Amino acid sequence: MGDYDRPVFFHLMEYAANADRDVVDMVSGNPDWEPPEALREGLAAYVSADVDTFQYPPSEGLAELRAEIAARRGVDRERVVVTNGAGEANYLAMAEALESQPGDEILLVDPVYPYYHKRTELLGGTPTFVAADADGRVDPAAVRAAASDETAAIVVNSPNNPTGAVYGRETKQELVDIAERHDALLVSDEVYDHFVYEPDAFESALAFDSANVAVTNAFSKSMAITGFRVGYGVYPERLVDDIRTRHMLVNVAGSRPAQHAVLHALRETPAEYYERNRSMLEERIDAFCAALDAAGAEYTRPQGAFYVMARFDGYPGTLAHTERLIDEAGVAGMPGDAFGESRAEWLRFAVVTPRAEEAAERLANYFG
Amino acid sequence: MGDYDRPVFFHLMEYAANADRDVVDMVSGNPDWEPPEALREGLAAYVSADVDTFQYPPSEGLAELRAEIAARRGVDRERVVVTNGAGEANYLAMAEALESQPGDEILLVDPVYPYYHKRTELLGGTPTFVAADADGRVDPAAVRAAASDETAAIVVNSPNNPTGAVYGRETKQELVDIAERHDALLVSDEVYDHFVYEPDAFESALAFDSANVAVTNAFSKSMAITGFRVGYGVYPERLVDDIRTRHMLVNVAGSRPAQHAVLHALRETPAEYYERNRSMLEERIDAFCAALDAAGAEYTRPQGAFYVMARFDGYPGTLAHTERLIDEAGVAGMPGDAFGESRAEWLRFAVVTPRAEEAAERLANYFG
Repeated sequence: MGDYDRPVFFHLMEYAANADRDVVDMVSGNPDWEPPEALREGLAAYVSADVDTFQYPPSEGLAELRAEIAARRGVDRERVVVTNGAGEANYLAMAEALESQPGDEILLVDPVYPYYHKRTELLGGTPTFVAADADGRVDPAAVRAAASDETAAIVVNSPNNPTGAVYGRETKQELVDIAERHDALLVSDEVYDHFVYEPDAFESALAFDSANVAVTNAFSKSMAITGFRVGYGVYPERLVDDIRTRHMLVNVAGSRPAQHAVLHALRETPAEYYERNRSMLEERIDAFCAALDAAGAEYTRPQGAFYVMARFDGYPGTLAHTERLIDEAGVAGMPGDAFGESRAEWLRFAVVTPRAEEAAERLANYFG
Repeated sequence: MGDYDRPVFFHLMEYAANADRDVVDMVSGNPDWEPPEALREGLAAYVSADVDTFQYPPSEGLAELRAEIAARRGVDRERVVVTNGAGEANYLAMAEALESQPGDEILLVDPVYPYYHKRTELLGGTPTFVAADADGRVDPAAVRAAASDETAAIVVNSPNNPTGAVYGRETKQELVDIAERHDALLVSDEVYDHFVYEPDAFESALAFDSANVAVTNAFSKSMAITGFRVGYGVYPERLVDDIRTRHMLVNVAGSRPAQHAVLHALRETPAEYYERNRSMLEERIDAFCAALDAAGAEYTRPQGAFYVMARFDGYPGTLAHTERLIDEAGVAGMPGDAFGESRAEWLRFAVVTPRAEEAAERLANYFG
């Protein structure tokens, strides 16, 4: 590790905020919609709870919260560890894979969510990248060719940030097979699973009964609470004890006010809440993509998550170009090169603003 | 790591709760007193905050919270990282020490807070124990004799759990000198610094201007909120960038509701709140020790923190004996052997109950 690696998105959000003009912020993946009503209710109830309830929760998470998660995912509660967001859930899976396997290689898909790559390096692992196709989908044959007994883990994210690709049943089955063949751990980060725009496109890795699968998730996106840091991992029985120990020795336990709020929201939030947000995002994506079409831009229409990658001729996806776009077009996105070489010509736009269509029109005017 | 190491105190709390008789619970270090009023106020205000405020806080903690901490500790804000409790603050310091130093040894004091020992093993370090004296104080000469260029870190806790010892200026100065001589990191865990019963006995390691000192702390005990998980580290400038990166890659960020509540409480809580709890604990300790005197027990009167270690002839500090004490005397403590060999004949009692005096009388009757 070297200098403190301030994430590019913090820099760009600041840059956009300090710009001399109106800027549509499409940088971060921070939801701009309301959390469930029951989330605020649950937190409000906790405010006046007994002081006992302000003390350490169980290290592995509130028992009721684990039970709710286990019931929804159809797994044994003992396999569920509540974590400090999906970030810690992924960290625990990757650290355990490297410790329990002889190999030190972690297979990642390029373009990559930058945390996976940097976390691999922090843990002393060796990242190997498998290139996705133009639409962001991973070719299982390419993963199979790259995997070996040196492979400790294969980390995938579907629906995918940044490409919006969704891996279906067949791809997931092949990834599970590859993990089993090399006794690696398939870490399936499914944090965008509430945001899928093609019916039945998505399959959770939990659909496969395998001792080589860890599924990670969080309430950060589905409940619009990225700052609460409540996530979870569903880990294989053979690894979960070690993972609980690591979680305990790193964090002792998660933060209890957030866990209580999420527990109440999980129980009380109707399906319509999630459906409404999904529909709203789909409309934003439609409008944004239509304006990109009008601008003649190349882009990938996401099957899931809430990012659109677009490419403008002669305008590579670097930090400098992203800053120029803020200054000259009034639109802030993320440089594609932050996600790896394969998207160095692209820009990523998060549709976490009601002004997505306006932003696309600005892009059309600027590049048109 | 082996099987999930469920902390002994969880087991004993359950055992006590399931006992067939009334039991005074002196097992955990969970405060039983009220948090500051402003803590609940701060959390209540957050409940109705804008949705922006529900998203990722800065990875290193809310800027205002870091500023408040920095001002109180008299350090540059850039050195402060807000963590998931003192647990994570210690984890980050120990991991960084092992990574940045050639040696893999971590010096610990016996009796030891078990997390330090297990965390050292998790990180692949080699723990070396320096025995404390009968009162729980560490002899700097013994630390000097044990330290070498293999020493990556020296981890101390003052006021101390479990002994109640408080290390004064002279001891701290010597520990800083030893760390500097071997370019090791002195990790000074000061989480009980609001609970010192001898005026001027305590000195923070921040009193010494050294690039080899990390001070860790939390609001868990001082605000009676062990479940909120808000702590911090003040790290040397030369290490803080790497530590921030590690924190980000493990946890992304801390939980924001808890940080907002603590920020408000830190600003608005009068000194009387802390003084009142300190006095109350001192009275409980007085009463408990007086009853132990009456029982003819050997014990260590704590200079700080809120634990009393006691020894009863022919009654070693094992888990089995602790369970027997629950069943036969109606008092639940912690076995001394959970803290290392040197206290294998002792039991630890936490005065986190208004019934401390009653418990001591039960012990007097049982052993008398």
